[in-house]
Amino acid sequence: MRIDIITVVPDLLKSPFEASIMKRSIDKGLVSVHFHNLRDYVTDNYRQVDDYQFGGGAGMVMMIEPIDKCISALKSQRDYDEVIYMTPDGETLNQGGANQLSLLKNIIILCGHYKGVDQRVRDHFITKEISIGDYVLSGGELGALILCDAVIRLIPGVLGNETSALTDSFQDNLLAPPIYTRPAEYKGWKVPDILTSGNFPKIESWREEQAYQRTKERRPDLLDD
Amino acid sequence: MRIDIITVVPDLLKSPFEASIMKRSIDKGLVSVHFHNLRDYVTDNYRQVDDYQFGGGAGMVMMIEPIDKCISALKSQRDYDEVIYMTPDGETLNQGGANQLSLLKNIIILCGHYKGVDQRVRDHFITKEISIGDYVLSGGELGALILCDAVIRLIPGVLGNETSALTDSFQDNLLAPPIYTRPAEYKGWKVPDILTSGNFPKIESWREEQAYQRTKERRPDLLDD
Repeated sequence: MRIDIITVVPDLLKSPFEASIMKRSIDKGLVSVHFHNLRDYVTDNYRQVDDYQFGGGAGMVMMIEPIDKCISALKSQRDYDEVIYMTPDGETLNQGGANQLSLLKNIIILCGHYKGVDQRVRDHFITKEISIGDYVLSGGELGALILCDAVIRLIPGVLGNETSALTDSFQDNLLAPPIYTRPAEYKGWKVPDILTSGNFPKIESWREEQAYQRTKERRPDLLDD
Repeated sequence: MRIDIITVVPDLLKSPFEASIMKRSIDKGLVSVHFHNLRDYVTDNYRQVDDYQFGGGAGMVMMIEPIDKCISALKSQRDYDEVIYMTPDGETLNQGGANQLSLLKNIIILCGHYKGVDQRVRDHFITKEISIGDYVLSGGELGALILCDAVIRLIPGVLGNETSALTDSFQDNLLAPPIYTRPAEYKGWKVPDILTSGNFPKIESWREEQAYQRTKERRPDLLDD
């Protein structure tokens, strides 16, 4: 999978791709991630990428021309499955959406910054608008990181143990059951007896019951789907 | 505000705090952010922070002892308003939650990694569990970044223009209206006439109507609240 990220602050994106699972997936050649600085697509001397809103109001708006140039340059080199814009009013990302995106070959992710991008960018160049949640961030970059991580970890070969992702929360519309590791007792707090019983069929049903109970208590909405 | 982040991959967190709004808020002295490497709180020579699950199953679990030591060390130095654990089965973050957290003085954010933390950590040390959305990430670090950004930008003095955050999506349960900047025409695509009319009361009502329409189309659930 190839991911092209268009941003005005490429430096912000660096470290998460240089650690942990995203780094390993890149090192293994399973994913390639490319940052594109929007300022490199500006013609004036000030490298201006944003301007005041028409009609007045606080906050700057990202201009259409540099974005058009950057997307066009990328599209002239290969076909893209989606041109994604990260925005709080996009479709809310969930695990099903991450699963679908993990099957794609080439995607562009446009990160808004300041107040957002000129609406004409969204109308003419964007094929999918994604929100990572109902809160506002200072830019689309952190949303892009979330999207990359959620998607990349689902690509076959990225996680060492293939079964690990399948027992995560949401994969079956249930939250994950509680988990414990050594020591079996710490400051008087004990691990549930069942988990040290060695009775694996019973452990399995205990976990299913716990996952169901936790979902019912915390997220009954997931059970309605 | 002081934020202490406990993690096994502190390097992953670096660059987002060294750019844009989070950097400026730190430079201005409005926020201080401290990373704590969990491996510094381990007593054995292997600096082991995780172990296999009791009862079997894929994925490693973060052990209670190093987490206990790290949280205890922090608590011995100051009082904390919340000890937050980032987890997909926590309470889903929204703008109202970010507003509330932005009023706090000292918080700890524990980032799970691998399969998550021993349940006893959650039962005995955590005061608040937060999810940033219904998808699974490779660790709590990216969730912590989202939480920090969403909260930090709401602290008075962080955003240059105080009114900017107030017109964002969600602050009034409405999505933001479309925005436009120069040029007024690009490749034949024009900005709506109303925005260049100079009639500000009319522009204001147009924006309200657009915000309402967009919310009705994309997120009718927000209008029910």
